[in-house]
Amino acid sequence: MANKEITSREDDYSKWYIDIVQKANLADYSAVKGCMVIKPWGFAIWENIQGQLDKMFKETGHVNAYFPLFIPKSFLSKEADHVEGFAKECAVVTHHRLMNNPDGSGVVVDPSAKLAEELIVRPTSETIIWNTYRDWINSYRDLPLLINQWANVVRWEMRTRLFLRTAEFLWQEGHTAHATQQEAVEETKLILNLYADFVEQYMAVPVIKGVKTANERFAGADDTYTIEALMQDGKALQSGTSHFLGQNFAKAFDVRFLNSENKQEYVWATSWGVSTRLMGALIMTHSDDDGLVLPPKLAPTQVVIVPIPKPTDEINEAAQKIISELRGKGISVKYDNDKKKRPGFKFAEHEMRGVPVRIGIGKRDLEKNQVEVARRDTKEKQSLPLEGIADAIQQLLENIQNNLFEKALKFRKEKTTKVDTWEDFQKVLKEKGGFILAHWDGTTETEVKIKELTKATIRCIPLDNEQEKGTCVLTGKPSKQRVLFAESY
Amino acid sequence: MANKEITSREDDYSKWYIDIVQKANLADYSAVKGCMVIKPWGFAIWENIQGQLDKMFKETGHVNAYFPLFIPKSFLSKEADHVEGFAKECAVVTHHRLMNNPDGSGVVVDPSAKLAEELIVRPTSETIIWNTYRDWINSYRDLPLLINQWANVVRWEMRTRLFLRTAEFLWQEGHTAHATQQEAVEETKLILNLYADFVEQYMAVPVIKGVKTANERFAGADDTYTIEALMQDGKALQSGTSHFLGQNFAKAFDVRFLNSENKQEYVWATSWGVSTRLMGALIMTHSDDDGLVLPPKLAPTQVVIVPIPKPTDEINEAAQKIISELRGKGISVKYDNDKKKRPGFKFAEHEMRGVPVRIGIGKRDLEKNQVEVARRDTKEKQSLPLEGIADAIQQLLENIQNNLFEKALKFRKEKTTKVDTWEDFQKVLKEKGGFILAHWDGTTETEVKIKELTKATIRCIPLDNEQEKGTCVLTGKPSKQRVLFAESY
Repeated sequence: MANKEITSREDDYSKWYIDIVQKANLADYSAVKGCMVIKPWGFAIWENIQGQLDKMFKETGHVNAYFPLFIPKSFLSKEADHVEGFAKECAVVTHHRLMNNPDGSGVVVDPSAKLAEELIVRPTSETIIWNTYRDWINSYRDLPLLINQWANVVRWEMRTRLFLRTAEFLWQEGHTAHATQQEAVEETKLILNLYADFVEQYMAVPVIKGVKTANERFAGADDTYTIEALMQDGKALQSGTSHFLGQNFAKAFDVRFLNSENKQEYVWATSWGVSTRLMGALIMTHSDDDGLVLPPKLAPTQVVIVPIPKPTDEINEAAQKIISELRGKGISVKYDNDKKKRPGFKFAEHEMRGVPVRIGIGKRDLEKNQVEVARRDTKEKQSLPLEGIADAIQQLLENIQNNLFEKALKFRKEKTTKVDTWEDFQKVLKEKGGFILAHWDGTTETEVKIKELTKATIRCIPLDNEQEKGTCVLTGKPSKQRVLFAESY
Repeated sequence: MANKEITSREDDYSKWYIDIVQKANLADYSAVKGCMVIKPWGFAIWENIQGQLDKMFKETGHVNAYFPLFIPKSFLSKEADHVEGFAKECAVVTHHRLMNNPDGSGVVVDPSAKLAEELIVRPTSETIIWNTYRDWINSYRDLPLLINQWANVVRWEMRTRLFLRTAEFLWQEGHTAHATQQEAVEETKLILNLYADFVEQYMAVPVIKGVKTANERFAGADDTYTIEALMQDGKALQSGTSHFLGQNFAKAFDVRFLNSENKQEYVWATSWGVSTRLMGALIMTHSDDDGLVLPPKLAPTQVVIVPIPKPTDEINEAAQKIISELRGKGISVKYDNDKKKRPGFKFAEHEMRGVPVRIGIGKRDLEKNQVEVARRDTKEKQSLPLEGIADAIQQLLENIQNNLFEKALKFRKEKTTKVDTWEDFQKVLKEKGGFILAHWDGTTETEVKIKELTKATIRCIPLDNEQEKGTCVLTGKPSKQRVLFAESY
């Protein structure tokens, strides 16, 4: 029985997505065009994402810091490629004071408070950070710097979609500085693998690791590594990127160090980030027509207990015992003992919000020393004995986590097609969607042409790619390997 | 022996403060006027402050969310007092695009990308949040809303000082909505007590809880509660505020609810916040002329182990054993086995950064099965047996935490003076500084006059104030209680 409040995926996939975001209380539009409000339930999931990533960053030697929200306009043009690819659509601060409108109708900008140089609300922080690193780095002894920042950034967007593309979003941006090229390249790959591990093991979303083509690189990077996930509508979602920046920003901001042979050298750099966009990947990978489906490892509430039909002393007592056993195992649990709502209403609500496991406790169940346990992912219900309930629930949560990943992986495999002709390329893209593995002649010209003709882009050149001779699907020119195409968000 | 890099408090207190902030690697100025960079060591302390406060907020039923960085200009003038007292010195976004300068010299603002309505970078979020709450609140069943946000805010400041007053700063802002006045007032006080408990028990900074006079209230509040701490130079630092907002913002943004008797009513509100300013309070309360002094509960590294004079197999082995015992007790410990630096250099560095306990391990110590333990607060050293070292260090950390609080409390008591004449008021303020308890006639006029004459302001009317008849120190008019005066940051 599909939830009547939610548009089905079949009817309108885009509407289904927005319905879930709004009705599961994850986020909503705000009074400011393009900016979203992240609601408590959505933010609690984001906090779990943050908490785990932060732990993984720290375990690999990174530390957090905080750099200014504003960037002087002149900084943006210091790295030529960076300003070309970026920084055009952004929020520009031109004044620093308001004043009462002389006509008494509110406030107006005080024209006398014009800034000498405009400030840009950071769209990304390479420029302000590398300008700062110049003061922090003198010698090889100061390296490496392994710094991360959790922050809000703004990129003006005309067409926005909650979590996937908003003018303001939350993210982390790592900015590291190294004495050698090799060390910086290793850092870029370390983070790519860390992202992939997190997204697969915690979000239960399988990803393809790869490197971007020159055309799809971050503005200012020598190489951009990416993890690409496949959504249920067959479109790809870029879920995290890790950039090897070479010495580009060090040169633009004159950041040099004295190496161990006492010679001046430019510093090597990386930057990397994931954002609230991950929330979009999470929602679109697992959810169904009844609402959100959450992997247990990121669910703010992993288990909800519902008294049937309402709380009694006996049921409360049984519930408290289960709660204390579950908490003892580090499982987060909520007892929904609200007397104003009926069980059916509660079931639908927790289903909508994606709580992985629901335990129903009724009088008859208790007489048999058992409870009814329902899992959100498959909707299966079973009666479980009270004896050993915590162990059983813990196992069930693990099963759900694994099942979500396996299901998504199976979907991706079914939706990944090897294609050898241009006719098939267009046909598969139109009729089946998903990832297409096809030969490409390696030129930006062909890549752009394919995008114009089909909307598909090269998501990445997979890292573990099999080397295989073939001919470009569009031009027929020789190719050494297949690359990953898809339509994307 | 005072650290030569740091100006002494006696010579120049302001310079001493900035020296510590910069040389203990807490924060620094940035390329953007008025904005600071929070460096990794400073940020790690802030993360500990955040982590503990966040835990306390959640334990009292609050949840986190995230609201937009930008506020439409028109929102600011909806609450009359709010716009009067606020929002004048702020960052104004007027455009959303840059373009290449036609002359090829970088980028300029695209005049065609002017916003229809200017956006303000949030100086505080009451307006955007209450505009959002209108959609979230319909009935008494939707109340209370107990929401907190961790965010950056911007208030343009001409004269800035790291952590104490910067254009951009980090903070948390709680915004709660209630069905009754009583419940909102209780929330305001709950948070005031939570702040006081945190600042006293974790930061080891004693505070006076009180209520602000009408003149010092938050713009838009019916009552502002505050915690006031005393710094080593005898000036007060407002360390956190909790506001009872009445129905002011509900009326300005038309937020009503259907009460349990089915009648429309305006919602009652509170807001409350602490910021990176707390870092200033922490630094100025405990630090000395050798650098930062940190309370153990907030120190990112509680114990540092230094091999003397350098790491050997024997010393490494002993260090690893101590580390594993300390970590087993949840104590954070770092082994400084850098071979390029000498012990004296390391001692000074960790002293500067405020690490609470240093353990020195030398060959001779080990032969006696002991190590040398130095505490940062009193500089005392003692030899402690390896047997039971973790218990001894745990106890020592507790002693340091308590000692810092007791020392600060003793200082505050000595620097708090009851004054009954205007002559004494001026004399005490000039010669001794600190808190002055004096009678005041209750008028804003007198309060403002005292500030003009002496720079002293009424920090608060203490909550546990003894009721005592007297006469105003300036006007001689009758008064029922003493209030707390001081010069302040």
